[in-house]
Amino acid sequence: MAKTGKLYLIPNTLGNVGLTRVIPSWVIDQVKGIKHFIVENPKEARAFLKKIESDFEQSEFVFSVLNKHTTELDKSNFLDPIAQGENIGIITDAGCPGIADPGAEMVKMAHEKNFQVVPFVGPSSILLAQMASGMNGQSFAFNGYLPIDKSDRKKRLKMLEKQSRDFSQAQSFIETPYRNIKLAEEILDTCSPNTMLCIACDVSLDTEFIKTLPIKAWKKNLLNVLHKRPCIFIIQS
Amino acid sequence: MAKTGKLYLIPNTLGNVGLTRVIPSWVIDQVKGIKHFIVENPKEARAFLKKIESDFEQSEFVFSVLNKHTTELDKSNFLDPIAQGENIGIITDAGCPGIADPGAEMVKMAHEKNFQVVPFVGPSSILLAQMASGMNGQSFAFNGYLPIDKSDRKKRLKMLEKQSRDFSQAQSFIETPYRNIKLAEEILDTCSPNTMLCIACDVSLDTEFIKTLPIKAWKKNLLNVLHKRPCIFIIQS
Repeated sequence: MAKTGKLYLIPNTLGNVGLTRVIPSWVIDQVKGIKHFIVENPKEARAFLKKIESDFEQSEFVFSVLNKHTTELDKSNFLDPIAQGENIGIITDAGCPGIADPGAEMVKMAHEKNFQVVPFVGPSSILLAQMASGMNGQSFAFNGYLPIDKSDRKKRLKMLEKQSRDFSQAQSFIETPYRNIKLAEEILDTCSPNTMLCIACDVSLDTEFIKTLPIKAWKKNLLNVLHKRPCIFIIQS
Repeated sequence: MAKTGKLYLIPNTLGNVGLTRVIPSWVIDQVKGIKHFIVENPKEARAFLKKIESDFEQSEFVFSVLNKHTTELDKSNFLDPIAQGENIGIITDAGCPGIADPGAEMVKMAHEKNFQVVPFVGPSSILLAQMASGMNGQSFAFNGYLPIDKSDRKKRLKMLEKQSRDFSQAQSFIETPYRNIKLAEEILDTCSPNTMLCIACDVSLDTEFIKTLPIKAWKKNLLNVLHKRPCIFIIQS
């Protein structure tokens, strides 16, 4: 009987920086030996695999594409190679698989099939922002995207601010980069003057910007730097 | 006028594994040039610095010790070298500074003084467990330690289970390793049979164990593996 393979979770850079800046060399070595991948975008995955200098030729790679168009039936077959003794790697377009990306669903399925899941170390903008925020590292929550509707979003912001106060829990969230400035302005207009706000942009890149100030000390003209750059917002009241 | 230094957040391994397994080589290179450190434990920090092959001799390092005995006055002086143009690194005993460790307070102070804070990539058992859990990666919270009192702890577990259901938010927490089995038994006794439970032990080590199952499928005899090993628990209802 063939030995069962494993599901490896392979982080990617958060933008245009060298792999060795954010991925441990041992992880790069492990990925060299993997041929089967579940990816968001084969083009991005090929670029990544070119950088790690895989033991395999580009023509040998087997990609399963996981995105919003992938059917349930397809997904249910993606892990079949593991049963046949092959390892599979999930490569995300940016950051850590399973964190704010579609990979979590495949991981869930792997546990249902009793396959071993191995997470590799790499850059998570959420975690790096939390580290660098100076906010409560004993209790923190990531909340994904806020509602788009302005009044719903205001309510949600108020609620997150209340949760951060009631549970001393730092509350982080994200926005589509081109709407960052708008969200930041709404945070300044909605939250209490003494609530702390951390904005972390371009985390782990040369252009990284991370700053924590009370709401009352943030000036709207400081927010122009956020335009179209990936940001994590963290509040704590 | 001297150029201002920066505060670097330097992760450490989560146990006895080589640095290159969990710390990017570029990060190791950056740390070689740092002489001033804020540490939990100078002995651990010296062992770490020996492994990275610093540009400095052990006798040249300047350590500020940050633990529960450190006075507020001492803390307020720890960042002075930054104003004088020196970089400072925070080295934690295990994992990422600012995450479930005393470093966050120094980071907060750095922001108050308008110093730049730079987080380096490294292993976080909380993040790696979340990645490998297959639970909601769009919304998750880390809650630190639960109350020690049995009835308070039961209430808190019930509340976390409810929060995970109400907000579709995965809820993680930790325990002192020698009490892991007891906590795990209480989770099985307290949570609903269909609530998912991930237990992640010895994350990033050779002995790593990560498993997600519904409460009803966990058997108490499976829990013996947790004894005295660092664990992350995650529930989602």
